[in-house]
Amino acid sequence: MHSLAVDIGGTKIAVGVCDDNDVIVRQWTVPTPGEAELIDEHIANLYLEASKSFNDIVAIGISAAGNVKEDHRTISFAANISGWVNYPLADRIEALIDHKAPVVVENDANCAGWGEFVHGAGKGHKNMVALTVGTGLGGAIVIDGELFRGSYGMAAELGHLPMVSDGDTCGCGLRGCAERYTSGNALERFARSAIRRRPQDAKRLLDMCGGDIYELRGKMVSKAAEEGDAISLYAFNKIGEWLGRTMAAISAVLDPDIYVIGGGVVAVGDILLDPARYNYSRFLQASAYRPHPPIVAATAGQDAGLIGAANLALRFYKDEYQK
Amino acid sequence: MHSLAVDIGGTKIAVGVCDDNDVIVRQWTVPTPGEAELIDEHIANLYLEASKSFNDIVAIGISAAGNVKEDHRTISFAANISGWVNYPLADRIEALIDHKAPVVVENDANCAGWGEFVHGAGKGHKNMVALTVGTGLGGAIVIDGELFRGSYGMAAELGHLPMVSDGDTCGCGLRGCAERYTSGNALERFARSAIRRRPQDAKRLLDMCGGDIYELRGKMVSKAAEEGDAISLYAFNKIGEWLGRTMAAISAVLDPDIYVIGGGVVAVGDILLDPARYNYSRFLQASAYRPHPPIVAATAGQDAGLIGAANLALRFYKDEYQK
Amino acid sequence: MHSLAVDIGGTKIAVGVCDDNDVIVRQWTVPTPGEAELIDEHIANLYLEASKSFNDIVAIGISAAGNVKEDHRTISFAANISGWVNYPLADRIEALIDHKAPVVVENDANCAGWGEFVHGAGKGHKNMVALTVGTGLGGAIVIDGELFRGSYGMAAELGHLPMVSDGDTCGCGLRGCAERYTSGNALERFARSAIRRRPQDAKRLLDMCGGDIYELRGKMVSKAAEEGDAISLYAFNKIGEWLGRTMAAISAVLDPDIYVIGGGVVAVGDILLDPARYNYSRFLQASAYRPHPPIVAATAGQDAGLIGAANLALRFYKDEYQK
Amino acid sequence: MHSLAVDIGGTKIAVGVCDDNDVIVRQWTVPTPGEAELIDEHIANLYLEASKSFNDIVAIGISAAGNVKEDHRTISFAANISGWVNYPLADRIEALIDHKAPVVVENDANCAGWGEFVHGAGKGHKNMVALTVGTGLGGAIVIDGELFRGSYGMAAELGHLPMVSDGDTCGCGLRGCAERYTSGNALERFARSAIRRRPQDAKRLLDMCGGDIYELRGKMVSKAAEEGDAISLYAFNKIGEWLGRTMAAISAVLDPDIYVIGGGVVAVGDILLDPARYNYSRFLQASAYRPHPPIVAATAGQDAGLIGAANLALRFYKDEYQK
Repeated sequence: MHSLAVDIGGTKIAVGVCDDNDVIVRQWTVPTPGEAELIDEHIANLYLEASKSFNDIVAIGISAAGNVKEDHRTISFAANISGWVNYPLADRIEALIDHKAPVVVENDANCAGWGEFVHGAGKGHKNMVALTVGTGLGGAIVIDGELFRGSYGMAAELGHLPMVSDGDTCGCGLRGCAERYTSGNALERFARSAIRRRPQDAKRLLDMCGGDIYELRGKMVSKAAEEGDAISLYAFNKIGEWLGRTMAAISAVLDPDIYVIGGGVVAVGDILLDPARYNYSRFLQASAYRPHPPIVAATAGQDAGLIGAANLALRFYKDEYQK
Repeated sequence: MHSLAVDIGGTKIAVGVCDDNDVIVRQWTVPTPGEAELIDEHIANLYLEASKSFNDIVAIGISAAGNVKEDHRTISFAANISGWVNYPLADRIEALIDHKAPVVVENDANCAGWGEFVHGAGKGHKNMVALTVGTGLGGAIVIDGELFRGSYGMAAELGHLPMVSDGDTCGCGLRGCAERYTSGNALERFARSAIRRRPQDAKRLLDMCGGDIYELRGKMVSKAAEEGDAISLYAFNKIGEWLGRTMAAISAVLDPDIYVIGGGVVAVGDILLDPARYNYSRFLQASAYRPHPPIVAATAGQDAGLIGAANLALRFYKDEYQK
Repeated sequence: MHSLAVDIGGTKIAVGVCDDNDVIVRQWTVPTPGEAELIDEHIANLYLEASKSFNDIVAIGISAAGNVKEDHRTISFAANISGWVNYPLADRIEALIDHKAPVVVENDANCAGWGEFVHGAGKGHKNMVALTVGTGLGGAIVIDGELFRGSYGMAAELGHLPMVSDGDTCGCGLRGCAERYTSGNALERFARSAIRRRPQDAKRLLDMCGGDIYELRGKMVSKAAEEGDAISLYAFNKIGEWLGRTMAAISAVLDPDIYVIGGGVVAVGDILLDPARYNYSRFLQASAYRPHPPIVAATAGQDAGLIGAANLALRFYKDEYQK
Repeated sequence: MHSLAVDIGGTKIAVGVCDDNDVIVRQWTVPTPGEAELIDEHIANLYLEASKSFNDIVAIGISAAGNVKEDHRTISFAANISGWVNYPLADRIEALIDHKAPVVVENDANCAGWGEFVHGAGKGHKNMVALTVGTGLGGAIVIDGELFRGSYGMAAELGHLPMVSDGDTCGCGLRGCAERYTSGNALERFARSAIRRRPQDAKRLLDMCGGDIYELRGKMVSKAAEEGDAISLYAFNKIGEWLGRTMAAISAVLDPDIYVIGGGVVAVGDILLDPARYNYSRFLQASAYRPHPPIVAATAGQDAGLIGAANLALRFYKDEYQK
């Protein structure tokens, strides 16, 4: 028995055929079409093609950068694909493939977090919070071993937890959202600010971005931080501080037994996680009177989202069709 | 079958004998003794006395103003009773009553919230958040019909959600906690500030507190607000604003399908709830693209905590002893 | 007796020949050259040309978008012209014109504020604070009838007064600067945020910017506000609130007897000034026990900067050469 | 020629007879009477008594904990003496002493700051800002060698500069005022918060306050900090941070050439001043492109206020009666 896992990103679609244990057995990428309808067709074709090689693909799991309704089928909206407003993605694809396999849709941060829970750093825990520190900040919550999606599929929007009253303007239209202070974008912003204020210390980073701080990218800051560059370490220290403060806020609500930190920015490891752990303790309510959960880097790798989507799809199939 | 419900407050202990449907059939109060050991004895005696009239009290439910561990038996700490640090309250009482009935201990805000869920405004919902606006701000979370207590009994400390970076100093040692902005204390503080700044408008409140603003109490502000007093309405508007902002933050994590607002301060009804609803919408992420849960006043009354404790105790008894 | 006034902007240089009463008698603009040295030559040529028509130009006043040292001659740095770091602008120009006329350099917001003080809305007052709400937020301070420049020419950088701890990231490298909350840029940002959150109310503004909110300009928001557009009025209300809060902060230091608000954004008049006045009162310390200075729109017009520069240059000439 | 200097505090009145150079030649204290009228009589009697020993007391300088109008004679209001609302203090005293000497009234922080400027750490400077870190935070501004009092006597209320939007509630009725973050009260508050959060490190301070953190006083924290106590050093580090941030905000307005820090809290010297200097640099706009003024401890001692009042009174006498 196999599943087809699809991760729809802004520029490319990652595809994987997974076996019964969510191991990816074949994997490739295709460009993301610009329109919602073309995406449907694309995925339908991916399924039909893959079915020629794997005749037992029983379910399709889709990881999408958007808010997914509680039905696991409809995208309520997405920042980057304009057609995706109350869009019946699962219905559309299932119709195109003559209902040969059920489609399960889930938010990308939820898929990645779930991948970590079933096959990565969260395995064996009960209540997990996963934070994906990428361009923005994504969140996933597992409660009592189940992915928690809220009443309307809007739970775990942890990047939009308000951290600063009247704070930094967020793309969502609010102010002070966590992802303005801890994310890849925030990393670049802290680095840029420091370069402006301490140009005398900024040689390494200015070299890397060719002297134009608007060309500075998170990966440059990561590389320089690993070399010991002072401004880059400062910038990681700041997003680490806010990552810790954000987790302390989450613990006031959820009190999880593990935090798993994923996303490209965590590649620097303890350069990010140490200030996060330190500030988690500083800003945790009743810090001295409670256990502190481990704060660890994700281990399921870049494909955590595909793995999570595959697992969700197969679980759905087994629950609905095999009982 | 009956249960004994006990609500241990700072100055008095409320006691109720409840029937199988959590209806309180007899109810009284006694003063709270000053020391932890005396409290144990007191509660044991309450049980022994009550058992003379009710020979089928099968469980004792205790609502306590403190943090209760995941075992439902041990108080990890409490701000007001100094002996309650890692205190085995259930063990102690069970020993004193020769293990005739099991003791279930739960945090008071959780008991009140649970009371609302089983017999009050939260009934029939799936994911409820209850906020108790009393002296401080307490929280309770119900997920999928079950009280959610977190991994170490520290979930739902919603009064300590950080709302303002570098904000008002909280008794917990942190800054900017929600209860500094929305609670009975916050109500008094907002009113006091306004009196200082607009003495010309403060006649009513100054009369009520005998000219000494440190003698101003929340109940005076409530009464004056209901009379239409401008400064009192301003103060309710402010704690209502922050109540709404706090719920918007909670929705970024939990996405519940109802908010139930209890506690003495909510007696003014929409004077508090209307600004809370308005600001919930203003500060909710993706406000235009999602359902808004109802925000309603609690209905189980002052005894919600007793009712909740009784229900938890009886549920425990049925699960453990009747299966 | 005449002066030559020069206002060096990012894209064009405004030039005026002014008479003894700072009345502009001839006026034109030229493009700004890209390099610092070319600017020197340009201004020298402007003087030599103008001198053919006016043989009594006794001084040159320069308004520059940069920080000017206490010597009134050297630019310590400027955000937009990279060569202007410790740049001896007055020395350079005086050398190029064979020292035929002295050159006085002043920061552009200071020139505009001084223009308002000598010939505009500040006339007759003693302690004036002028705020220029343009792309950013500029400030000028007059104390006891004299332009106050501080010990090192860095006074009155009022756009960088910190208003929000951990607030919006400023181009200067700090966070929470006033100009992030009250300026033309802030106006666009508040409007953009509101469009995202209330797309159903945004028809007028979306029409104006062709559906792309990054093409939204302050002038569109001004026009729509004057038509009564709700989102535009909201955005003005917000920058007005912060303008009032910024002035309240300034009053804690300076206690001026008038605030003059200039810059392109103030063209909407009371749409901006009413919320500014209201919030000034709300956030002013000891509001009920002190006189409130008038908060008025600038009246010297777009050329306030030229007029101010002309006046400063002529005053310098009279003080130094005619005594 | 002598002056009489009087410093009216909440519990005692300090009195000094000063010679022509503002040297105190006789000094004593008396209790402060509870009512405004009794204070008038008291000071008149002090003058009459002192005149028996010194027959050339030509002026009386009064330092008062309240806001003094621009006339140097009337108290517009005072937080601690309820009768002092628009109170003609100088008129009253002059009438009681048959107009034998003029009375000059000035705010206490202004007197202390002026004392530092004429005979202390500010001597020889041009633009000085003095901050008195006592129970609260007082300010004084000297511009171009003159005490700057603003248009209505309300300048230099630097303790009420807003530093945090929605911040700590201030006794003045506003939020986020500087003195809530840097003052003797703030020191106690930071220490208390740290004790709550890190009880294991709090032995020294808990011993000092007898186990009751509400009995903790600033002097205890100072003593413990000098012994190296970790929590006390943390508390000084925090008020030092905010002192630096407050000065950075002031520099955006005033750009002074020296900061003089007085008041009882500064007795610990660099324990306070080092974090203040460090954070001044971190939060100063254009930090890398401007001179940084020295930040020094006051040197005129506890009597700076008397010395300043004496000097102001004598200057007034010389200006008005000897020209």
